[in-house]
Amino acid sequence: MNAPVRLISLLAMVLSATAIAQGNRPPPIESPVVRPDRTVTFRLRAPDARKVELSGQFLKGNQMMDKDEAGVWSVTVGPIEPNLYPYQFVVDGMSVADPSNPDLFPNERFKSSLVDIRGETAPLYAAQSVPHGELVYGFYQSKVLGRTRPLVVYTPPGYRASGGSYPVLYLVSGTTDTEETWFRVGRVNFILDNLIAQKKAVPMIVVMPYGNMMMGTPMPNSLQAAEMYKVFNDELLHHILPYVESNFRVVADREHRAIAGFSRGGGQSLFTAFNNPDKFAWIGSYAAYLTPEVCEKYFPELISRVDETNSRFRLLWLGVGKADFLYPQATAFNSFLTEKKIKHVELITEGGHTWMNARHYLAETLQSFFR
Amino acid sequence: MNAPVRLISLLAMVLSATAIAQGNRPPPIESPVVRPDRTVTFRLRAPDARKVELSGQFLKGNQMMDKDEAGVWSVTVGPIEPNLYPYQFVVDGMSVADPSNPDLFPNERFKSSLVDIRGETAPLYAAQSVPHGELVYGFYQSKVLGRTRPLVVYTPPGYRASGGSYPVLYLVSGTTDTEETWFRVGRVNFILDNLIAQKKAVPMIVVMPYGNMMMGTPMPNSLQAAEMYKVFNDELLHHILPYVESNFRVVADREHRAIAGFSRGGGQSLFTAFNNPDKFAWIGSYAAYLTPEVCEKYFPELISRVDETNSRFRLLWLGVGKADFLYPQATAFNSFLTEKKIKHVELITEGGHTWMNARHYLAETLQSFFR
Repeated sequence: MNAPVRLISLLAMVLSATAIAQGNRPPPIESPVVRPDRTVTFRLRAPDARKVELSGQFLKGNQMMDKDEAGVWSVTVGPIEPNLYPYQFVVDGMSVADPSNPDLFPNERFKSSLVDIRGETAPLYAAQSVPHGELVYGFYQSKVLGRTRPLVVYTPPGYRASGGSYPVLYLVSGTTDTEETWFRVGRVNFILDNLIAQKKAVPMIVVMPYGNMMMGTPMPNSLQAAEMYKVFNDELLHHILPYVESNFRVVADREHRAIAGFSRGGGQSLFTAFNNPDKFAWIGSYAAYLTPEVCEKYFPELISRVDETNSRFRLLWLGVGKADFLYPQATAFNSFLTEKKIKHVELITEGGHTWMNARHYLAETLQSFFR
Repeated sequence: MNAPVRLISLLAMVLSATAIAQGNRPPPIESPVVRPDRTVTFRLRAPDARKVELSGQFLKGNQMMDKDEAGVWSVTVGPIEPNLYPYQFVVDGMSVADPSNPDLFPNERFKSSLVDIRGETAPLYAAQSVPHGELVYGFYQSKVLGRTRPLVVYTPPGYRASGGSYPVLYLVSGTTDTEETWFRVGRVNFILDNLIAQKKAVPMIVVMPYGNMMMGTPMPNSLQAAEMYKVFNDELLHHILPYVESNFRVVADREHRAIAGFSRGGGQSLFTAFNNPDKFAWIGSYAAYLTPEVCEKYFPELISRVDETNSRFRLLWLGVGKADFLYPQATAFNSFLTEKKIKHVELITEGGHTWMNARHYLAETLQSFFR
């Protein structure tokens, strides 16, 4: 903490007593508190709750929390392996986000908070002292959803001043995520800022659409899912691409267009690219797959004309974790591609169906796209 | 609901059974459900809770909710006067946002959700069929806070293509709000899109900084508060203005610079404009004030040279609701200005210290700024 910040904090403590007297509010709780040794204290004020647990992807199971005389529940865990993790409190069986933490996980169903555990070096997903790009919320008319929808667009550092045109990655999030999840949880902006500064990634535009064309209901992976992927395919091609290409300076050809996604978004990315090999040359599938039957039904030519397929796709990249619940299906898809002699790159990692893995896979592919 | 949406919803219901079987999740809850007669049903799954209440600014007091055999609590209220309201559930004394509603109120302390009750005509804050501006999250280095901070910038429809320069409004939110609150709750973007389309507002850029320079602690209104306003003043002038003026096409003179805010943000706006009459010509104070002692201590020349003051400020606008807890102080400030013969415009409305009023005051002043 530097000197002016410390001064302000001191003054803040003095003033907060006055504020409480005025507003009749209980004193603010600090949660989470991350210490340099990577132990973390989580706190929740819930004086009438009977049981409060901490649930987080850094824990093996839920952790019981203890209540003090002021009705504040707390638990200290760790040291935790450095990463940016989702967590929530389970209060008498109901999951809630941490009310003291403004850093939320955007999702249509569950409400999680985020805790950032730092190691000795700044992680790739952190805001570092490099030029920063912007995140833009644009609004376009979705015919499929019958309403105005936001989509989030990353423009690289210097975009406004440069006048140049850029390649574009369409980046799709998972089931029940929103157009904000790759920004808030995936931290694609800081990852790209850092990779661009290190000259490990080409400056590019990233477009994050809302992927759930079913308006809130989760989607299974099946032939029926493929029908749903077609709805996404149509929205992307007929409404999102034209919006992006008329509002941002992008190079509008297949060699400068990538599509990638996590979980259901990975399925949508595979489907859309396979369905439009004239439009996309770069593909990233993060913890996702298509079934052989979907491939055979919808893309027979991709399989029968392998040489053409292999010359068209500059990168077909597939990553999955060994503990991912989709690991069997994802690796079966990898085997199917191998058997059909369709060129692809596989990355098998530790870990499960998590945003920590999604972020890792993104960082890997960003270094290959458009090279 | 139009035909493709209906088809998708049907298919979604079929698929969701599969999804539940796969994911072992309870079925999704729909909440809130707003009916054409403006009655609304709110629902929360909390099987182990003993008491769940609905709290909302459309209610006189908290409303008890009832539990069904599946552990889902619900209540139907209304008809409710059309507006966009914050609400939350109080579960055994603990306030939580609605987990089924992705529309959240960004705030550092409390977690509310938003419910939009529509009347017969589309409200000014709604996305209508007009050209839309963009919301931009830019990242700048805050010396005061010692870290990279986002700020949110609205650019008007056609900004990217136009090449022209625009006037700029600095718009500050209230205590414990964030740089997102004027976007998510204030809906400044849709209000401006609509006013610009109706030619009732000048196309302008709006910059929404993070106002809480004390990093999370509320601020009282007092002489001490003025010291805190000075910290904000410095951040705005030395770090935010240069960022904005080097990244966006703004006309960088006082006649094309406005500052306005709600609650503590209104106090910061008054203080910063009074402190820099060479930099700001337009002021909006929404449910806020400065004390006479602050004015006399910090701005003696503004009071002693009234003619100069009145020629410098093109608009000093002050709005407050009769039920606002700051009503006595805000109207005392109005009287002080009148007594000192400082020209200003007052609007006294019904209602309290709410974002419904803040939105109303914003819409009023947007029609006067830069005219």
